[in-house]
Amino acid sequence: MKAVEQLRSPLRVFEKLESEVRSYCRSFPTVFTHARDYKLWDAEGREYIDFFAGAGALNYGHNNPKIKEKLIEYLMNDGVTHSLDMATAAKENFLKRFYHVILKPRGLHYKVMFPGPTGTNSVESALKLARKVTGRDTVISFTNAFHGMTLGSLAVTGNKFKRKGAGIPLNNSISMPFDNYLGDEADTVNYIERFLEDNGSGVSLPAAIILETVQAEGGINAASFQWLQRIEEICRRWNILLIVDDVQMGCGRTGPFFSFEPAGIQPDIVCLSKSIGGYGLPMALTLIKPEFDVWEPGEHNGTFRGNNLGFVAAAQALSYWENESFSEEIKAKGERVRVFLEKLVRQHPEMEGEVRGRGLIQGIAVGKDGLAEKICAAAFERGLIMETSGANSEVVKLLPPLTIDEAGLNKGLQILEDSIKWCKKGH
Amino acid sequence: MKAVEQLRSPLRVFEKLESEVRSYCRSFPTVFTHARDYKLWDAEGREYIDFFAGAGALNYGHNNPKIKEKLIEYLMNDGVTHSLDMATAAKENFLKRFYHVILKPRGLHYKVMFPGPTGTNSVESALKLARKVTGRDTVISFTNAFHGMTLGSLAVTGNKFKRKGAGIPLNNSISMPFDNYLGDEADTVNYIERFLEDNGSGVSLPAAIILETVQAEGGINAASFQWLQRIEEICRRWNILLIVDDVQMGCGRTGPFFSFEPAGIQPDIVCLSKSIGGYGLPMALTLIKPEFDVWEPGEHNGTFRGNNLGFVAAAQALSYWENESFSEEIKAKGERVRVFLEKLVRQHPEMEGEVRGRGLIQGIAVGKDGLAEKICAAAFERGLIMETSGANSEVVKLLPPLTIDEAGLNKGLQILEDSIKWCKKGH
Amino acid sequence: MKAVEQLRSPLRVFEKLESEVRSYCRSFPTVFTHARDYKLWDAEGREYIDFFAGAGALNYGHNNPKIKEKLIEYLMNDGVTHSLDMATAAKENFLKRFYHVILKPRGLHYKVMFPGPTGTNSVESALKLARKVTGRDTVISFTNAFHGMTLGSLAVTGNKFKRKGAGIPLNNSISMPFDNYLGDEADTVNYIERFLEDNGSGVSLPAAIILETVQAEGGINAASFQWLQRIEEICRRWNILLIVDDVQMGCGRTGPFFSFEPAGIQPDIVCLSKSIGGYGLPMALTLIKPEFDVWEPGEHNGTFRGNNLGFVAAAQALSYWENESFSEEIKAKGERVRVFLEKLVRQHPEMEGEVRGRGLIQGIAVGKDGLAEKICAAAFERGLIMETSGANSEVVKLLPPLTIDEAGLNKGLQILEDSIKWCKKGH
Amino acid sequence: MKAVEQLRSPLRVFEKLESEVRSYCRSFPTVFTHARDYKLWDAEGREYIDFFAGAGALNYGHNNPKIKEKLIEYLMNDGVTHSLDMATAAKENFLKRFYHVILKPRGLHYKVMFPGPTGTNSVESALKLARKVTGRDTVISFTNAFHGMTLGSLAVTGNKFKRKGAGIPLNNSISMPFDNYLGDEADTVNYIERFLEDNGSGVSLPAAIILETVQAEGGINAASFQWLQRIEEICRRWNILLIVDDVQMGCGRTGPFFSFEPAGIQPDIVCLSKSIGGYGLPMALTLIKPEFDVWEPGEHNGTFRGNNLGFVAAAQALSYWENESFSEEIKAKGERVRVFLEKLVRQHPEMEGEVRGRGLIQGIAVGKDGLAEKICAAAFERGLIMETSGANSEVVKLLPPLTIDEAGLNKGLQILEDSIKWCKKGH
Repeated sequence: MKAVEQLRSPLRVFEKLESEVRSYCRSFPTVFTHARDYKLWDAEGREYIDFFAGAGALNYGHNNPKIKEKLIEYLMNDGVTHSLDMATAAKENFLKRFYHVILKPRGLHYKVMFPGPTGTNSVESALKLARKVTGRDTVISFTNAFHGMTLGSLAVTGNKFKRKGAGIPLNNSISMPFDNYLGDEADTVNYIERFLEDNGSGVSLPAAIILETVQAEGGINAASFQWLQRIEEICRRWNILLIVDDVQMGCGRTGPFFSFEPAGIQPDIVCLSKSIGGYGLPMALTLIKPEFDVWEPGEHNGTFRGNNLGFVAAAQALSYWENESFSEEIKAKGERVRVFLEKLVRQHPEMEGEVRGRGLIQGIAVGKDGLAEKICAAAFERGLIMETSGANSEVVKLLPPLTIDEAGLNKGLQILEDSIKWCKKGH
Repeated sequence: MKAVEQLRSPLRVFEKLESEVRSYCRSFPTVFTHARDYKLWDAEGREYIDFFAGAGALNYGHNNPKIKEKLIEYLMNDGVTHSLDMATAAKENFLKRFYHVILKPRGLHYKVMFPGPTGTNSVESALKLARKVTGRDTVISFTNAFHGMTLGSLAVTGNKFKRKGAGIPLNNSISMPFDNYLGDEADTVNYIERFLEDNGSGVSLPAAIILETVQAEGGINAASFQWLQRIEEICRRWNILLIVDDVQMGCGRTGPFFSFEPAGIQPDIVCLSKSIGGYGLPMALTLIKPEFDVWEPGEHNGTFRGNNLGFVAAAQALSYWENESFSEEIKAKGERVRVFLEKLVRQHPEMEGEVRGRGLIQGIAVGKDGLAEKICAAAFERGLIMETSGANSEVVKLLPPLTIDEAGLNKGLQILEDSIKWCKKGH
Repeated sequence: MKAVEQLRSPLRVFEKLESEVRSYCRSFPTVFTHARDYKLWDAEGREYIDFFAGAGALNYGHNNPKIKEKLIEYLMNDGVTHSLDMATAAKENFLKRFYHVILKPRGLHYKVMFPGPTGTNSVESALKLARKVTGRDTVISFTNAFHGMTLGSLAVTGNKFKRKGAGIPLNNSISMPFDNYLGDEADTVNYIERFLEDNGSGVSLPAAIILETVQAEGGINAASFQWLQRIEEICRRWNILLIVDDVQMGCGRTGPFFSFEPAGIQPDIVCLSKSIGGYGLPMALTLIKPEFDVWEPGEHNGTFRGNNLGFVAAAQALSYWENESFSEEIKAKGERVRVFLEKLVRQHPEMEGEVRGRGLIQGIAVGKDGLAEKICAAAFERGLIMETSGANSEVVKLLPPLTIDEAGLNKGLQILEDSIKWCKKGH
Repeated sequence: MKAVEQLRSPLRVFEKLESEVRSYCRSFPTVFTHARDYKLWDAEGREYIDFFAGAGALNYGHNNPKIKEKLIEYLMNDGVTHSLDMATAAKENFLKRFYHVILKPRGLHYKVMFPGPTGTNSVESALKLARKVTGRDTVISFTNAFHGMTLGSLAVTGNKFKRKGAGIPLNNSISMPFDNYLGDEADTVNYIERFLEDNGSGVSLPAAIILETVQAEGGINAASFQWLQRIEEICRRWNILLIVDDVQMGCGRTGPFFSFEPAGIQPDIVCLSKSIGGYGLPMALTLIKPEFDVWEPGEHNGTFRGNNLGFVAAAQALSYWENESFSEEIKAKGERVRVFLEKLVRQHPEMEGEVRGRGLIQGIAVGKDGLAEKICAAAFERGLIMETSGANSEVVKLLPPLTIDEAGLNKGLQILEDSIKWCKKGH
C-alpha cells in the first residue's frame, strides 16, 4: 500500500533519489515551479503566499523584475560568470555600490571580504580572523544562536540536534545567556561580566563574541538595543572582537540595512549573506574593520567566492537603499504585522501566545506544545508558506519578502488567523 | 608615490575596498569583463586563454552557450530561483537526469544530498555522516590533501598555511602518507595497515578515509588505481567509510565522469561540486550509499541548497555525458598535453621537471625553487592564465576547460613553452 | 649584591637546583626540619604553628604518634611496601576498616578504586568513568573549582592562571556558577536548569557534574546544603552522574567524615585523597556506586596505586571515626574559630572582611586589594603558617590540623589578630 | 556455586569491596604480606621470586635494608613527612645528592621540578612546559608508547584500550612510528622528517617529541642509539623539545642511570619516577634544561610534591650510583639474561620467540597467540611473578630488581624455562 502511495506522491522522485536529510519539502509537500515577488506556484497551478522568503534570502521577493533584467542582460553579454577571487567588472561595480550606498552614508569603515557564497562561510572566516587577531581560542556565543552547519559555525550554534550532528565534541566556544534568557529581572550581561572579571571563573578571555541581534532560528528572540550596547562595552573593555552575524537580520529584515544600526553599535566584523545576493543567489560578505584585516593573501579561500551573477544582482538590489523610503516602508509593514499578531494573541488566549520580533521578522511563541506546527501545517493547506522556529518548533514565524504589498500581507495574515481558528476547533 | 600609483592601478577599487585576503587577483592583476569557453577578456580588451578554468569549476567552458540558453529561458519564465530544500521542478529534473545519465549507466547506487552549494559543504556533510554511521571520531586524510576551508574540512586538509588559519588546533583527523609520498619503493598502504592492525599504534579506528584520486591543490599527485583499490580493501576490512572527494576531479576532469571509475572502486560517499553546477554556478552534491543515508530530516541544512539556476545548468551540462564521446575527447586531449609536457621536460632539463597528472589535470613539478611561479607570471604576460599548485607553489598546473578546442589547446601550450624559454634566459 | 645575598639565603640550594615553579617555599622562606601535630620547626630551631596542614593532607596532624608507631612496625616487619594493584594484607585491612568504620555505618554503598596516589588521579578516573557510563562528552564544573593539574582535572578547574598553563585549549567541560556566585538573590541552580531544559542552549547533556561542597582553593566558598540537594535533583532528573570531589573537604575537614553527609545527598562517585593517607602519605580513592563500576580490568592504572605505607597509616587513622566524638570536636573548634573571626571582622571594618567556611576550613575574605597576602606574610613572621586562597589571593585561609588542641588554636588565632593589627598600622 | 567459591577465595575481600578495575591481583591471585629484595611472601607463607619489581619501581629491591634504616630513623626523629613544596632538610639533602651524584658527574645541566609523586604527573608537567616554551600545540609521540593515564599523558600513549578509556577524543598529539616499526629496511626517522619538511603534510611543527628509549609496556621495543641520535637531530633542526620519559628505563634499568646516556643525547626535559623514590615510595622528578625553566611560581602544583619519606629513601638510593660498579653489575646480569633467553628461543622454536630489550628489561616476544600469557600464568604457579607486555600481551617480560643476586636470577630463569616446557606439553 505504502509503496503504491509513494509512487503517486508528487514527491516520488525526491523520495526515491534524494537523501533522507531533506526537510522543508516534508512540511511543504508539493513541487514548486514558478515564483514572483511574494507568490509561489506549484506544478498543479496552485498559488501560495510566501511568508518564509527563502529563510530570509528573498528580501526583495522572488524573481525581482529589475534584478532579473540585469541578470539576463549580463548573461546575454557573456559577462564573466565565475571568477574565483579574480577582479571582474561586476565585482568592482558591486564593491563601489556597496561602499557608496551602504558604508559611506552610515559612516562605517569596513573592508569587504568574499568568503565563499554562504552564511556559514562568512561565519567561519569571521571566527578564524578573530582568533588570529587576538591569539585567543574561545568564542562566546549565545543560547539559541544559529550560525551555520560547518564545524566552526556549528560550535557557536545552540541547537542540540544540529550540534549532535557533528559527531564529535564541539569545542572552543562558550554558550552564554542571550538577552532575556533568564527572565525579565536578570540582566544577562551582568552574568557574562561576572565570568569575565573573575580570574577563577573557568571562562577564558574570548577572541570574540558572536551574536544575532534577533535570533530567528532560535525562536525570534530580539535583543534590546541597550543589551547590545552593553555587550559592545564588554567587548571594548576586554579587547574582544564583536561579530554581528547579520546573515538573516541584515539587508533590511528588521528595517534598517544593518540590524544593529538603531543600537548605535559598531561591530568589528559583520557577516552578511542570504539577501545580499539580491535574487536568492548564493553570495556572502564578511565586513572587517580595516585595523583587523590582517589576513595573508589566500589564507581563507573558496571556489565560489566570485559568483558574478550574485554581484550583478546584489548591485542592483542596493538601489532599494539609496534613500530612506524602503526602510520606512518595512517599519510600517512591521507595525501592521505587530498590531495584527497582538490582536490574535489577545483573541486566542488558549494559544498562550507571545508576540516576538521586530520589523518583518515577527512571530508568535505558542505556549501549547505542538500547536505552532499545526498552525503552520493548516496555513500551508490554505496557501500560506510559513515555518516554525525555536528549539522545540514552538514559534510561528512570519518572514515575508520586504517588498510584499498590502494585499499580500493582508491575505497572508488572514490565512494565519483562519489557521489558528481552525486549530482551535480541535483539528 | 605609492598612493598615486595605486590610484592609477586597474585594481585600485579592490585595493581600497576589498580585504587583504584576496589572492588570485594579485597573480592575474587585471579586471576581467567577458568570457566564453576557454577565453577571457579584460577591461582593456585583452584576450586570455584560460588554463585555470575556475579551479575546475568551468569544465564546460565559460558561458557555455547551450547552458546559457536554458538559464535565460528559466529566468524569463520566472522559474523558482531560490527554494531552500523544497521540491521544485528544476530540482526534480536534475535528479532524474543525474540518475538516468550518470548513476544508472554506471551501476552506482547513491542517494543524492544537497549539502549547500560549495565543496566544503559537501565535505563537512560527508564527515558528519561518516561519524554518525560509525560512532567513531577520527578521519584519516592524506598528506597534501585539500578539502576546504571550514573547520571540519580544514582538519582533513594538509596545507600548513591554511591549517594555521584556523587559529585553534585542528583535531579528530590523522594525516597518512598519500600514494608515493615516501618514494617509489615504499607502499604507503602497508604503512596505514600497520597502524590499523596494531592495537598499540596510537591511531584509533577511523570513521572514514577521505581522499582525492588526484590531488590538484596538493601538487597534482595522482594515486595509482591499484593504490585506490588497496585503500578500498582497507575500508572494507575494518568497516571504515570510503569518501572520495571528487569536487575537482569529478565531472570529467580526468576523463570519466567520476575520477574513480577506472579504479573500479565504489566509495561509500562521494563529494561533488565545482563543475557539477555546469556554468560555474555554486552547487554541490553529496552522494551516499543508501544503507548509510541515516540522516534525520534537517540534521544538516543550509540556505543555498536550492540554487535552481544551478540545477537548470547542471541538468543541461549532463548532456555531455549521454554517450562516451566527451570522455574519449578528454582522454585524447589529455594525451596531447602529456606528450607536449614530456617534451618540454626533456628539452629543458634545467627545470628539473616531472610531468604529473591525468586527463586534463596535468602539470610540471619544477625542481628549481620559485621557477614555477615565474613561468606562470610570464605566461600571464603572454595571455595565458595558469596557476601553480603544491605546498610550495612548485607545480605548473594545466587545467583547461574540457571543451577547449585544438587551436586553443595548442595556443596555450605554445605560450607555456615560450614562457619557459623566456624564464630560462634568466628573466 | 643579589648573587651574594642568594648564596647566604637559607634557600640557596633550592634557588640553584630547583625549578622556578616552586611556590610555597617563597611564601614560607625557611628550611623546615621537624614536625609534630600542629607544630613545625625550621633548621634554626624556630617553631611555627601550622594553620595550613599540608593543604588539608594533615588532618590528623604532623607525624601523628599512633600512626607513626604502625608505620615503623610495618617497616620493621618487612611488610610489602609497593604492590601496584596486587592484593596485600595491608590493603585488605584498609578495605575492611574503610567498609566497617566509614561506609557501613553511613549506609553508603560504594566500590573502592585505587586510582593512583593523588587527588588528580582520582578526579581523572572519575571523569573517565562518568563518560564511559553515560557515553557523553562534557562535564559540568563550577566557577572557582579546583580539581587538579593534569589535563582532565585542569579542564574542570576554574583558575585562569592554572588553566593557561595547559598550553592548549581545555575542552569538554562547561563552567557553571557555583552557589551564590551571582549574589544572594539569584539561585544558580535555576540557571543550570534553564540550560539543561532548553534544547537550544548550546550546552549538551553532561556526563557528570563535579563539585566541591566547600571550595577551598577557590576562596572558601561553601555551598548551602539546599543548593547541594538541588544539584543532586538535577543529576537524578537527567541521569547525570554526581561527582563530589571530597579530596580536601573529606576526612573530617568540615566536621563529618564526608563533607556531603549533612546535605543528605549520595554522590555517584566520590574522590578522596589528601588526608585519607593519614600521615601525609600519597594515597587516593575513588568511590563508585556499584551499578556504575563498569571498568574493564586495567582500564585505568598507575604505578603507585599500591602505596602500602599509605594503607597502614590510613587504616590506623580511621580509628578517629569509630564514634562521633572526633566529629563533635571538630564542630566545636570550628565554632570557636567562627566566633573569633566574626569578632575580628567586626573590630576591623577597614579590612572589608567577610567570614567564610565551615568546620575547620574557615577564613576571611578581605575586600582590600593585596591585604590578605600581607596578613599571611605578617603571620609567618610571627610564627604562624597560613596561606591565602581565591583567584586573586583575597582570602585568609585557616586550615589547622583537626587534632589541634585549644592552646594551639588560641595561639594561632592570636597571631592572626596581631598580624591584622600590625597590617592596619600601615606596615 | 560461584558465590560459595568466591567466599572462600583468598581475594574475597577485594572481590567484594574493590572496583572491577583491579588488574594485577587477577594475574597473581594471592594476598602478599612480606617482601625483601627479590622475594615476596603471601599469607600462606608461599615464597615468590619477583621478576616484575613493581613495574620498575623496585630497582633496589623490596624493602632495601639500608634505605629502610634511614626511613625508620627519619620517622622516629619526627622529620617533616609532608611539606607540599616548602623547603625541608630532607628535600635539600636529596637535591644536593642528586646534583653531586647524578647530574654533575655526567655533565648534565637540569633544574629539578617536583611535579607530584607519579610518572604521569611528570609527563603532564613536561608536556605543559614544552607547549609553553614553544607556543605550539601538538606533541609527537610514538607507536606503542606508554606515558600515563591522566588525560595529557594518555593522549601520547599508544594503547587503544587505554586510550578508549578516556571517553573523549584524545587530541593535540601525533603518533609516529617508533624505531623498527615498519621493519628493518625502513628508517622511521626518514618518515618523520618527510612529514616535518613538507608544508603540505598535515602535520604541524610539534612542541615536543616524547619517547621512551625502550618501550616496556609497549612490548619491550628498544630504540637503537643511532635512531635516538637522529631524533635528537630532528629536534635541534626544528627547535622541537626532546622529552625522554625515563620513568621506567631510568634509575639503572638498562644499565646506566639514565637510559639515554650511551646514545650521547641530551634531552631538553627528562621524566623520572618509579625507582627514583628508592623504596617504592611515590615520587617523581621533571628535569628541565635551565633555559627552558620558564614556569611561573605555582603554574603547576600538587599536594604530594613533598613526600619527604621519598626524599629520604631517594637520597640513600643514590649511593648505588657513587661509582660505576652498580652499572657494571646490571650489564653483567643483563648479559646473563640475554644468553639464557636466546637459548630458550633456540630450543623452543615453536614459540616463534624473539628476544628483546636491554640491561635488565628483557623479554621474549612470542609469536603464538595467547602463549605469553600462559607462560606467565604457569610461572606464577611455580613461584615466579612475571607479567606480559605489548598491545596484545604477546611479550613475556623480565624485570627483576637490579639488586637481585645470582641465585635469585638463576632460579627465576629456571622457572621460566620450566614454564615454557610445561606449556609446550599442551597444558
